[in-house]
Amino acid sequence: MSAFPHPDLDLPRFAQAPDARFVAAPADGVLPEGFFSTTNLPTYVKVGGAWRMPREPRMDSALVLDSQGELWVREGRRVCAGDPVAVGTSEDASDGIFVHGTAFLGDAAEGEFKFMTSAVSREKPIDYSLMARLLIEERDRDGYPIWVAGPALVHSRARADMTWFIEQGFVGAFLAGNAVAVHDIEASIFGTTLGMTGSGEASAGGHGLHMRAINQVRAAGSIARAVEQGIVTDGIMHALVRRDVPFVLCGSIRDDGPLPGVYTDILAAQDAMKVHTTRATMALLIATALHAIATGNMLPAFVTEPDGSLRELATICVDSSEFVVSKLKDRGTHQAFGVVTNAQDFMHIMRLYVERELDARARQASPVAAVGAR
Amino acid sequence: MSAFPHPDLDLPRFAQAPDARFVAAPADGVLPEGFFSTTNLPTYVKVGGAWRMPREPRMDSALVLDSQGELWVREGRRVCAGDPVAVGTSEDASDGIFVHGTAFLGDAAEGEFKFMTSAVSREKPIDYSLMARLLIEERDRDGYPIWVAGPALVHSRARADMTWFIEQGFVGAFLAGNAVAVHDIEASIFGTTLGMTGSGEASAGGHGLHMRAINQVRAAGSIARAVEQGIVTDGIMHALVRRDVPFVLCGSIRDDGPLPGVYTDILAAQDAMKVHTTRATMALLIATALHAIATGNMLPAFVTEPDGSLRELATICVDSSEFVVSKLKDRGTHQAFGVVTNAQDFMHIMRLYVERELDARARQASPVAAVGAR
Amino acid sequence: MSAFPHPDLDLPRFAQAPDARFVAAPADGVLPEGFFSTTNLPTYVKVGGAWRMPREPRMDSALVLDSQGELWVREGRRVCAGDPVAVGTSEDASDGIFVHGTAFLGDAAEGEFKFMTSAVSREKPIDYSLMARLLIEERDRDGYPIWVAGPALVHSRARADMTWFIEQGFVGAFLAGNAVAVHDIEASIFGTTLGMTGSGEASAGGHGLHMRAINQVRAAGSIARAVEQGIVTDGIMHALVRRDVPFVLCGSIRDDGPLPGVYTDILAAQDAMKVHTTRATMALLIATALHAIATGNMLPAFVTEPDGSLRELATICVDSSEFVVSKLKDRGTHQAFGVVTNAQDFMHIMRLYVERELDARARQASPVAAVGAR
Amino acid sequence: MSAFPHPDLDLPRFAQAPDARFVAAPADGVLPEGFFSTTNLPTYVKVGGAWRMPREPRMDSALVLDSQGELWVREGRRVCAGDPVAVGTSEDASDGIFVHGTAFLGDAAEGEFKFMTSAVSREKPIDYSLMARLLIEERDRDGYPIWVAGPALVHSRARADMTWFIEQGFVGAFLAGNAVAVHDIEASIFGTTLGMTGSGEASAGGHGLHMRAINQVRAAGSIARAVEQGIVTDGIMHALVRRDVPFVLCGSIRDDGPLPGVYTDILAAQDAMKVHTTRATMALLIATALHAIATGNMLPAFVTEPDGSLRELATICVDSSEFVVSKLKDRGTHQAFGVVTNAQDFMHIMRLYVERELDARARQASPVAAVGAR
Repeated sequence: MSAFPHPDLDLPRFAQAPDARFVAAPADGVLPEGFFSTTNLPTYVKVGGAWRMPREPRMDSALVLDSQGELWVREGRRVCAGDPVAVGTSEDASDGIFVHGTAFLGDAAEGEFKFMTSAVSREKPIDYSLMARLLIEERDRDGYPIWVAGPALVHSRARADMTWFIEQGFVGAFLAGNAVAVHDIEASIFGTTLGMTGSGEASAGGHGLHMRAINQVRAAGSIARAVEQGIVTDGIMHALVRRDVPFVLCGSIRDDGPLPGVYTDILAAQDAMKVHTTRATMALLIATALHAIATGNMLPAFVTEPDGSLRELATICVDSSEFVVSKLKDRGTHQAFGVVTNAQDFMHIMRLYVERELDARARQASPVAAVGAR
Repeated sequence: MSAFPHPDLDLPRFAQAPDARFVAAPADGVLPEGFFSTTNLPTYVKVGGAWRMPREPRMDSALVLDSQGELWVREGRRVCAGDPVAVGTSEDASDGIFVHGTAFLGDAAEGEFKFMTSAVSREKPIDYSLMARLLIEERDRDGYPIWVAGPALVHSRARADMTWFIEQGFVGAFLAGNAVAVHDIEASIFGTTLGMTGSGEASAGGHGLHMRAINQVRAAGSIARAVEQGIVTDGIMHALVRRDVPFVLCGSIRDDGPLPGVYTDILAAQDAMKVHTTRATMALLIATALHAIATGNMLPAFVTEPDGSLRELATICVDSSEFVVSKLKDRGTHQAFGVVTNAQDFMHIMRLYVERELDARARQASPVAAVGAR
Repeated sequence: MSAFPHPDLDLPRFAQAPDARFVAAPADGVLPEGFFSTTNLPTYVKVGGAWRMPREPRMDSALVLDSQGELWVREGRRVCAGDPVAVGTSEDASDGIFVHGTAFLGDAAEGEFKFMTSAVSREKPIDYSLMARLLIEERDRDGYPIWVAGPALVHSRARADMTWFIEQGFVGAFLAGNAVAVHDIEASIFGTTLGMTGSGEASAGGHGLHMRAINQVRAAGSIARAVEQGIVTDGIMHALVRRDVPFVLCGSIRDDGPLPGVYTDILAAQDAMKVHTTRATMALLIATALHAIATGNMLPAFVTEPDGSLRELATICVDSSEFVVSKLKDRGTHQAFGVVTNAQDFMHIMRLYVERELDARARQASPVAAVGAR
Repeated sequence: MSAFPHPDLDLPRFAQAPDARFVAAPADGVLPEGFFSTTNLPTYVKVGGAWRMPREPRMDSALVLDSQGELWVREGRRVCAGDPVAVGTSEDASDGIFVHGTAFLGDAAEGEFKFMTSAVSREKPIDYSLMARLLIEERDRDGYPIWVAGPALVHSRARADMTWFIEQGFVGAFLAGNAVAVHDIEASIFGTTLGMTGSGEASAGGHGLHMRAINQVRAAGSIARAVEQGIVTDGIMHALVRRDVPFVLCGSIRDDGPLPGVYTDILAAQDAMKVHTTRATMALLIATALHAIATGNMLPAFVTEPDGSLRELATICVDSSEFVVSKLKDRGTHQAFGVVTNAQDFMHIMRLYVERELDARARQASPVAAVGAR
């Protein structure tokens, strides 16, 4: 384990620093206003002109002098009325307290002790409002947001919301695998996905339904023809066909069927995807490790504007686990912003925020018209 | 590995079964309507009066006779126009096809081959509409829904939604730990949780803010007094105090402070919780393994109605991972219904559905009034 | 929420049941030997010839009569010396206590209240000893175990152990993707995987190393030729080539390169995989969702022995999360046995157990020779 | 989304840089030795004295000039024999190629594009050999390693390995909750944990066994007395008592019983833990979020050696999910090293490595004696 040198306390910033200031605790278990809150890092306190390290160091506690002049780190609840407690918030020696952050922390939090510094966590707030604005701006300026989705999107009934985004013009291109289209078409024909009903029950005889859905489309010859012939009457593929939004269905070894139009050669699939990643001005990667990482591999981290200037390519990665987002970053897509949640819920709230934002903008533009629009 | 006997094919149900029916494939790679879709289980097909097992068994494929009369399991894409393909959906020998499910499947899916049979999965749809109705019914009949929450609820800004549920009368009692109250109060005083801002950034100097929040409440003497004195002006604890909703804050060894009123003796905490679990008519366990399992331990699986009849005690467990829900069930709370999602998103959508349902009921009750209510 | 009827207490099994037996608690907080331990299910206790339900039901507690003859569920710690406590373990009314399990539990645990009934959990013990025996038996009887692996196997340095299994003859066929071979070959040529060193550090300039590895093999023309030419000198692919073990590398849209020999057409890849799934007598699916589910799709749940008898096809699925195993089962591979752990650790312990078992057998077969063999 | 300025290409380092060097591809789909491997970041290439950005930027590809002198990013497989391909590995303009890393990457990887930079991942190798050496060194120098464990350690049968570490003197203090001791004692008395057998089956009547185990110890009066009286005859608690290793059992609201000796007041429990965290020279936190974070809160990030010098306090956190380790770091225990694996497997391999290392040291110290020692 690494050894760490003490700071050189003869340096002027330490030598010239004032003593730490102590204020009496106002009551048992209550600290004075502005108390110094400790960290778990080596800490030096100037008392009587000399720098000392307190005993029993730990975080989230106070610095207390006892009657013998001994300096302790002590939990607030253990402090007694009248105990001298160090006050101040600066940790750089200027107020007589120095926290030796750089030695131990390295990169983390720029040498300052902080909580909540991990890159990806379900505990981080999700800024739907910002994401909704980004998406609307993309539509307003004729951007090319690409949506990359895994089967959970259909499986867990975010299907209606995805369809809405397509119909409202928020989808530049849609990249997915055979399974997304199969589940979506099974839902249109039979009302199930893999035989599971909308309330999550496995239906009797349900295990063959996705195969029957595939077979009907194969018989029709193509997804577009299945839409024309009224076999597929709603959902994601229906909306893509009807609205002429380009889509790429990439094959994988898991595929049943596959549906006509699925790229069974993965290099041809990559070439087809690249047509869209090259144009992309935003990327939403939802509930898919395979397609998210494949897209990340092909995606520049930046957009080149028509005037030649550069901006970051907003890349949102939604998954139930931190792992997929971290893996995407570990494969070099460092610009990805992770949203750790259920795909169904993500889609529903995104739509809600986009609707609200559009409504707010409509009302701002024309207060009377907006009411009618509702 | 277990060996399994073949079924006794001399039994009348097998002996008297008709031959399986075969229909010619209408085109290359296209199966006839009503084709039999295979499983991975031992399968017996009656051909020419004799039961045979097809070669190369696998799921999601068809049963095909080749020109030599050999019977194969074959992927639909490999079937040629004119190939004889078995049709039928029953798997119980009555149409000449028998799937030997019971030997291998045991409990799963009652001996029938099915997909999506796991108890808890992020891939299952979440029926917010049903949960919203349950919650409203509880309020309507003066039920006692208990809410049990972990700090992620506050941390990830579902705080406003939780506050709304308290204010609207949907909370019989609120059970949580010290951290929930600490984060909530830090958010009220400083606008951060553990020093993290609402947009997820770790703020400079932020690591002490929760300690300062705790200290202010300790100085005030109790949470209720901190509310009265205007130290805590919004949020969950504020709403609980203002609306006189009972709450129990249970201590744990992770606690900073703790806040006044937290039960530091865990047996006293259990006794305090039990007052509410004994009365509970519904339970929502959100983003907490410790408190969810503790509550599950104390909670009957049923509610005894005033007339002595019994109904299941609706128990909803929300967590980002399947593991916590499975663990709760593995500790005996078998009635728990799992929602695998982010707590922030769960709260937001639940509120939305409750609002919609209330609005729909209001409009039904009094079409004119409802418009005004918006 | 479902309502549930009380049992018909007039039935003979209830009417003829004896009263429950009560024994005095020997000390404060100590229950008598053989005390009845409660569940959270509706419970009926016969006292004075009449069936009653105790108050404050919960699990893990005792049934206690108070001085007024009232019946309570009470935690052991709250029982006082001398309190009458129900004894007995049967829950079927025969000893005067009935737990109404079937109404609420449904399938779970055959109507009996049990803990730890989930199908897949990291909390379940892993029986390496059984798995080692299965694998050795496969080798002994010339079985055909197929190994299906994801890149984590190489990435996290289980590479040496995988190589050992190949060299010792435990691998019938090896099915994987391009990335497994790329990481393995990068490790052979440069000592890194994706530029990460063996101690987990991202190396400077490392991001191009996997591309250089691919390029060298493309220049050589095939993996076999890269082995012959001394470009690839150790590891998994080297062992497969040298030992003539068949392998299938299936392409995906994530692939860099790809390496020569990778099936870029996913239907051709499926056909190549099926050659091996059709012969398989055991399957080990390690750290891959895509390939595990693809293989599961093609794999019968059973092996047909040469004599026509059937046995379950032992299918082991190893993953860091419960989700992948549950998903595999939800896609119909119900026979899969889940091992929730890190792939690196799995491989290491499996090898250890196989070595121990071989050593034990060698010693049994020939006590003297075994010592020499060490 | 942030806009980013181009670098100032008039600066001397750019102005004076040479042109990038191009070498002809030796064959179709094969790149020249030393080819430049692209990233997803803005890239500038000097051609004919002028800096240009290539078209269709993406990572893991080559820089190719076409016959019109246009510069492309192109996948290796699409390069033809004779195409001029840029060579070089430096990305700082010195060889005519500049990757504009700092603008986009921020902290990550010190401005260089790298893979595998996440702090915690199941894909990182686990250096058991280093951890084993650290643990042995702690024992050799009379260090005070504290072990903090969750119930999964017992539940999943790492119990024998934990016992071994206690008996071999590797445990300074053992900190856990009531459940660890309950499961361990149930295993000693009944051979089950929560009624689950060693092979993972829920046993009939098993749900009461942990309550019976607790009751027997409560009747005995203390864990130590239960050991003396022969009620508890093996396992973790038995070893701790027999070897006089200090332990702290902290209460929580989940506790059944609790066992005698469990601290039911959580502040008393914290004080008891702190006696050991203050002395700790190493910390192993295994399969517990609650106790790991509680310990992390109290633990300095450093050890003060007797001579006053400082070294990092080696802190190993083992969990099945990245989330617990990240959460521990997010609560300020930045020095924690994460091992993402199953607790059972971790314990088994750690023991194996410690045994091997001890054996190697014994053989080195005294080649003859070591053989005897086996």
